[in-house]
Amino acid sequence: MRESSTVGESALERDSTLTRIDDGVFEGDVSLDWCIGDAANGGYALSLGLRAIAAVLPLPDPLSSTAHYMRPLVHGPVRIEVETMRIGRTLARGVARMLQDGDECVRVLAVFGALPETPAEPLYAEPRDIVLAPLEECTPLVLNTPGGLTAHVRARFDTRYDPGSVGWARGNPTGRPLLSAWVRAEDGSEPDRFLIPVVADALPCTAFDLAVEQRVLTVELTVHQRAIPAPGWLVCSYRSRLVADGYMEEDGEFWDSKGRLVGMSRQLAILPRIS
Amino acid sequence: MRESSTVGESALERDSTLTRIDDGVFEGDVSLDWCIGDAANGGYALSLGLRAIAAVLPLPDPLSSTAHYMRPLVHGPVRIEVETMRIGRTLARGVARMLQDGDECVRVLAVFGALPETPAEPLYAEPRDIVLAPLEECTPLVLNTPGGLTAHVRARFDTRYDPGSVGWARGNPTGRPLLSAWVRAEDGSEPDRFLIPVVADALPCTAFDLAVEQRVLTVELTVHQRAIPAPGWLVCSYRSRLVADGYMEEDGEFWDSKGRLVGMSRQLAILPRIS
Repeated sequence: MRESSTVGESALERDSTLTRIDDGVFEGDVSLDWCIGDAANGGYALSLGLRAIAAVLPLPDPLSSTAHYMRPLVHGPVRIEVETMRIGRTLARGVARMLQDGDECVRVLAVFGALPETPAEPLYAEPRDIVLAPLEECTPLVLNTPGGLTAHVRARFDTRYDPGSVGWARGNPTGRPLLSAWVRAEDGSEPDRFLIPVVADALPCTAFDLAVEQRVLTVELTVHQRAIPAPGWLVCSYRSRLVADGYMEEDGEFWDSKGRLVGMSRQLAILPRIS
Repeated sequence: MRESSTVGESALERDSTLTRIDDGVFEGDVSLDWCIGDAANGGYALSLGLRAIAAVLPLPDPLSSTAHYMRPLVHGPVRIEVETMRIGRTLARGVARMLQDGDECVRVLAVFGALPETPAEPLYAEPRDIVLAPLEECTPLVLNTPGGLTAHVRARFDTRYDPGSVGWARGNPTGRPLLSAWVRAEDGSEPDRFLIPVVADALPCTAFDLAVEQRVLTVELTVHQRAIPAPGWLVCSYRSRLVADGYMEEDGEFWDSKGRLVGMSRQLAILPRIS
């Protein structure tokens, strides 16, 4: 099912190709492969915006990046305008405006730095505390959303869900907005600084296990990246603590195969039909 | 020590006065009262930026706001330029650029909405899980930072620390980057949508209890606000999970006197002298 691709570009790289048409201005194509329905997954949109910022800034790693979603970014051409905010010695900041037909759909604000190739011993690292069965006991599933839209983006990942997660997919919502899974790119490519933002938003919403049967729309997504991920499976967990008044947050954690916390995400999302 | 101030403006309101000098352009003054040394506390800077955005947008509540700190915003005049990003029916977005001497110091990106005066029963709410002794067993302290800078902002709050927190202030760091406290504005004013962002960054850094004896600089701060806080004490907790390679994150939770989770924050900070 998965082909090794140690040579050549990954599917994400291929689908994040940007052409520089002017100083800080890029054109690209929102690939249907990373959409839900015909709208870009929020993590893919963020990742694409970060590629444009990375092409302008002198530092490689998006330490903290925030995307605001204003309009659906749909399958098709996209124009990305990058503004350099401030370039320092250890930190560099940029903004990407992602436009379709002249309308801004997504804005990304990010601070880049340089993560060490070999991390030092942490001053403090909380141990991983995620309920996740061993890989061989977890179920590979490619899940759509309850609303019936095709979640193309899910087919880009080999995702092995913990047996206690995604009860809704078996017709039996767990009642707890928690999800944990082993995750790899389906093409066999290894996780990197542009894949983590996609992973942050690509799995099914935790609220589906509260029997929420509608699309949940990301309003804002922030991803911190703290280490360069080691090759291999990611351990991913997602959790919500408050689903109320039509809004929810979803927090993600991403651990690499060496047991390091490589990323953390938080999003605010809106449940349009629940007031 | 605290005077009731049900009539008149709060200290924060007084120190957040902005004058509109052009369409979307404001002038104000960064008050020393909310500084650490002579630089604005990051939460106060965010709150001030949100005031400017709020003056332009038609919706009242900053649901999610992100500040990027590029240069110290120091005690003295500040110019704030607001850009309206998108105004919809339920969400409105804006950006504030905060400038001193023509240089941008802080950029704030926020999405506003309208939180209900009377919250509905949540679809899901995780119970509060914070170790915090009863108010009368907690210690009122006004703490400076280990580096010796005066933390003026701390005197703006009546803060009662849990006995298990801020061991460093008693010369005995706990070794755990956790902090919990009861918090109110020192002037007796009640918490609101502009105070929560300040609270998110005003307490001592969790890393001080790892025997870190230096100022920790906020790189980026994101605050979600999920409910209008009820009058009374806030229960605040702060936690870090990874302090490594010169970076740390700090997550805050803010609960009102009715036991509701009203806000959540996460910041990325840099420890300049720890590589």
